[in-house]
Amino acid sequence: MSGQEALQGRAVNQAPEDIAYRAIGILHSPHTDIAGMPIQPVGALGILGHVDVHADFAAGLHDLQGFSHVFLLYHLHRVKGFDLMVKPFLDNDRHGIFATRSPSRPNPIGLSVLELAGVCGNTVHVRNVDILDGTPVLDIKPYVPRFDVWQAERTGWFAHKAQNADTLRSDDRFR
Amino acid sequence: MSGQEALQGRAVNQAPEDIAYRAIGILHSPHTDIAGMPIQPVGALGILGHVDVHADFAAGLHDLQGFSHVFLLYHLHRVKGFDLMVKPFLDNDRHGIFATRSPSRPNPIGLSVLELAGVCGNTVHVRNVDILDGTPVLDIKPYVPRFDVWQAERTGWFAHKAQNADTLRSDDRFR
Repeated sequence: MSGQEALQGRAVNQAPEDIAYRAIGILHSPHTDIAGMPIQPVGALGILGHVDVHADFAAGLHDLQGFSHVFLLYHLHRVKGFDLMVKPFLDNDRHGIFATRSPSRPNPIGLSVLELAGVCGNTVHVRNVDILDGTPVLDIKPYVPRFDVWQAERTGWFAHKAQNADTLRSDDRFR
Repeated sequence: MSGQEALQGRAVNQAPEDIAYRAIGILHSPHTDIAGMPIQPVGALGILGHVDVHADFAAGLHDLQGFSHVFLLYHLHRVKGFDLMVKPFLDNDRHGIFATRSPSRPNPIGLSVLELAGVCGNTVHVRNVDILDGTPVLDIKPYVPRFDVWQAERTGWFAHKAQNADTLRSDDRFR
C-alpha cells in the first residue's frame, strides 16, 4: 500500500462493514444545502429543528422531556467515503481525521450537543441545530454534566481556532 | 402491535438495518466481565486502557496527541437486542431508553469522554475507562469544550442519581 493510498480511505477500505444500524428517526432542519451551514451548535444558536422518531421507537422517549440538553448521534449520509488526513473547515493545515470533527470519517457518525426544546408525541424539538435536513438519527442520549463535562486542558490545533466556529460556515469540501 | 410488543424491541424490530459501519480498532481494558464494571468514566478514575487502531486507519491519528480528552464512540457488542423501557443501573424506576445511558439501545452505540494518556504508533492510551475489554471502537473525536460543554440546567431523573455513578457498579441486567 503506497503512502498516498494510506491517506485515501476510498482506495484502501478493506475492512468488513459488519456493524449494522438503522435510523431511529429523521432530523428536519432549515439546512437544506451541505454548503453554507453552521459547523457546530455554537454557530447555530437559536436555530430550531426536530427529530421525527419512527413510531416503533417512540416509547423510548418516555421521560426525555426532563432534560435541557441531549446528545444527538446521526449518520452523515451525504458524505461518500472517507479521508484519513483532512483540511477541516476551521484550519488551513491538514490533520488526522480523528483529531478533527470533520464529517468524512471511516464511520460517518455526527455528534452534537443540542438544547432540548420539547417532546411532543414522537417528535423531539431541538435548538442550536447544525445538522443537514433529512439526516438519519442513530441515537438520542441525555446530556449529564457529571458524566460529560470535563476540564480539558489541551485542545490541540483547536486552541486558537475553536471560537471561529461561532461564525464560520461550511463549504462543500466533504460532499 | 400490542403495548407490550411496543416496549420489547426484540419483538418489533422491523426497521431495515441499512447503515453499515466497521470497527476502526479494539479497546482493551481491565474489565473482562459485563457485571461489576464502572458504569461511567467518573466511576473509573485512573483506570487505564488502550485502543489498538487497525493499521488501515492509523494515519487518522495524526495530531490527536495534542488533546487532553477525547470522545470514544463504540459498539456495545455484548448487548443483544434492545428495550424501549429500561430500569437503568442508577434507578429503581423504568425510563424510556433515550432518557437513559443504558446499553440496550436500538443502535447500541456507547459514548464516553476519556482522558487521553498518549498516542504511540497505532495505539491510543486512555484513562478513566468504563468500557468492556474487546469492545469494537467506531470513532475517536477530539473533545472541545467550546463545542461540547453546555450549561445543562435540567437533568431529569438523573438530578439526584448521577453522583451515584462515582461508586455504583454494573450488574448483568443488559447481557
